[in-house]
Amino acid sequence: QYERVLLGHGSGGKLSADLIQRVFLAELGNEVLSSLEDSATLSLDSQTNLPNHRNSGPRIAFTTDSFVVKPLFFPGGDIGKLAVHGTVNDLAVAGATPLYLSAAFILEEGFAIESLQRIVVSMRQACDEAGVTLVTGDTKVVDRGKGDEVFITTTGIGLHAANRELSIRNARPGDQIIVSGTIGDHGMTIMSTREGIEFETALESDTAPLNDLTRVMLDACPSIRVMRDPTRGGVSSTLNELATASKVGISLDEASIPVRAEVHSACEMLGLDPMYVANEGKLIVVVPEQDCQSLLTVMKQHSRGRDAAVIGSVVADHTGMVVMRSLIGGQRVVTMLAGEQLPRIC
Amino acid sequence: QYERVLLGHGSGGKLSADLIQRVFLAELGNEVLSSLEDSATLSLDSQTNLPNHRNSGPRIAFTTDSFVVKPLFFPGGDIGKLAVHGTVNDLAVAGATPLYLSAAFILEEGFAIESLQRIVVSMRQACDEAGVTLVTGDTKVVDRGKGDEVFITTTGIGLHAANRELSIRNARPGDQIIVSGTIGDHGMTIMSTREGIEFETALESDTAPLNDLTRVMLDACPSIRVMRDPTRGGVSSTLNELATASKVGISLDEASIPVRAEVHSACEMLGLDPMYVANEGKLIVVVPEQDCQSLLTVMKQHSRGRDAAVIGSVVADHTGMVVMRSLIGGQRVVTMLAGEQLPRIC
Ligand SMILES: Nc1ncnc2c1ncn2[C@@H]1O[C@H](COP(=O)(O)OP(=O)(O)OP(=O)(O)O)[C@@H](O)[C@H]1O
Ligand SMILES: Nc1ncnc2c1ncn2[C@@H]1O[C@H](COP(=O)(O)OP(=O)(O)OP(=O)(O)O)[C@@H](O)[C@H]1O
Ligand SMILES: [Mg+2]
Ligand SMILES: [Mg+2]
Ligand SMILES: [Mg+2]
Ligand SMILES: [Mg+2]
Ligand SMILES: [Mg+2]
Ligand SMILES: [Mg+2]
Repeated sequence: QYERVLLGHGSGGKLSADLIQRVFLAELGNEVLSSLEDSATLSLDSQTNLPNHRNSGPRIAFTTDSFVVKPLFFPGGDIGKLAVHGTVNDLAVAGATPLYLSAAFILEEGFAIESLQRIVVSMRQACDEAGVTLVTGDTKVVDRGKGDEVFITTTGIGLHAANRELSIRNARPGDQIIVSGTIGDHGMTIMSTREGIEFETALESDTAPLNDLTRVMLDACPSIRVMRDPTRGGVSSTLNELATASKVGISLDEASIPVRAEVHSACEMLGLDPMYVANEGKLIVVVPEQDCQSLLTVMKQHSRGRDAAVIGSVVADHTGMVVMRSLIGGQRVVTMLAGEQLPRIC
Repeated sequence: QYERVLLGHGSGGKLSADLIQRVFLAELGNEVLSSLEDSATLSLDSQTNLPNHRNSGPRIAFTTDSFVVKPLFFPGGDIGKLAVHGTVNDLAVAGATPLYLSAAFILEEGFAIESLQRIVVSMRQACDEAGVTLVTGDTKVVDRGKGDEVFITTTGIGLHAANRELSIRNARPGDQIIVSGTIGDHGMTIMSTREGIEFETALESDTAPLNDLTRVMLDACPSIRVMRDPTRGGVSSTLNELATASKVGISLDEASIPVRAEVHSACEMLGLDPMYVANEGKLIVVVPEQDCQSLLTVMKQHSRGRDAAVIGSVVADHTGMVVMRSLIGGQRVVTMLAGEQLPRIC
């Protein structure tokens, strides 16, 4: 075992999951936290002013993420946009309507106020687009060399519809798996920016709010079982979490997975698999087979789901495992991201 | 004006207030955020699933703080306790019952897992004591030299009683001002630990949850106008914020302000005024004169309010200013903390 924090503990893959289990859940675990959903679901009883699970009061969704991306500004976005979209999306894929955000800033002494201002403007635009209000904040400063320009932690509150219950435990054999668009765009943009690699067609992060897409999807298809945003660790890690939590197997068809040509080239050049690369404006949805085509149609009509595709299905075999039929016909097991890949992608 | 972030922007004094106004509120300002309360108050309408101010649904309190204290462990507490208490207290002084927390960790590569574990154990104990549940989290890792062991951002959700409306704008001439105990303990503990100064009687941080004290206070005295936790910037900065927001003057009596002998000595040695030093387990409360003595009695019966004292009153004169009658009889204006004092106190 490790005695010190490794970069891989922030990867969103195996090491992240292990640290969360061994250090955090071992001590802090409770029914809500240990379910490891994108957002916690909390019930508030307006009558008694006491917390009260599964009663008549509104159920709220609650989620947090820190953002430490480097560089701060990249093609398609910046740390501010990411900080709003990331938290909005964790609420949205939980099936909730995102309403309110908090933002806590850890600034490094010497950071340019002008850059901070650009980030704040970008956050405001992102809030406006997503229809959320930033209602509380915090500002701390650390001495030069003890931080890295700016870290932002956003926390979000959303509201659940009365009788909706999405969960990463809900996938059932026979269900179909849809991805809302091309994969790997965000991660490859950050990596190639950092490595100073230029591609003929410029890469661009997919960072975007998904709450309008999820609203339309849930209105059209109330039978949706699970949604999840495949951020750090990519589609592979998300699907492995799903297979474990729902105690099912997952079968994928590589040929059906949408990957932009320029992402594909960048991945080849850096020796990476797009299945492990982070996304910031995509979701995975699990839906009963009979509703799959109508959901896909609705998604494709939405600007955030234009390239949506069915990429596989939930099976009763190989419980807890993700197996992919590859382009050349063979089958391979797709595991969670194991190493570090790349730190500070979000 | 400044072009770069200064340490003083994290002091909780004038520079902090200026940065929040100029950079954050200028762009992100809205009715809730711009009121600059310890917690945002949000109304959720359980019927329509839409945000709706001042309606029948429950009103929730929402607040966030990042913690970057150095050293991580200090007499009386550690960064984990502080991260729980700080957010619990911002909910409590808003008059809300703290219920749920999120915690986002930014870990530096190489940080010892054992230290992280100690912090997590400490957070769990603090959550148990305060009666709150940690329901969601996040874990990011930054490369060595780009962070400082661990930063923690906690965000809290609390519930307001049906018709309670505390606000920093509510102080009225004639009201009395009470502090719940000795001031400067937390800040002087951190500073003397960092400077390697040892005092005959060991200093200890006052970090503590205040939600049980506030509950008892509000039950006994529903007329309470304002509560506030004088953290960064100390009692002086908090009272200046109060004077400005309520458009009143504040008169203080130096002789009545409780300061521990060892804090007093440490302050003298380092040339500091305890009025500007951070507290992490104290509150300031403003109460109509007729209820002051009964509230004080209730506070003194509580373990967190044993040393409570009336320190001054709200006046119609010198609006926006805090004036103190000093020990030797003269009057002086007590301004907000102006410089940097000490970074990373919480
Ligand atoms: N330090 C922690 N303490 C407790 N729970 C944690 C901690 N870090 C993460 N978790 C929990 O683990 C689960 C996975 O967290 P993770 O951050 O990977 O999800 P995510 O926010 O959807 O992904 P990303 O952070 O890449 O956007 C969540 O349910 C989260 O609440
Ligand atoms: N970056 C920011 N953006 C928007 N609002 C902010 C920001 N930083 C602070 N605020 C707001 O300014 C007010 C004062 O914040 P501050 O952090 O000083 O209060 P506090 O949490 O009570 O004190 P402390 O952080 O010392 O515990 C709060 O209402 C807070 O919401
Ligand atoms: Mg997520
Ligand atoms: Mg997330
Ligand atoms: Mg704060
Ligand atoms: Mg406060
Ligand atoms: Mg605070
Ligand atoms: Mg996260």
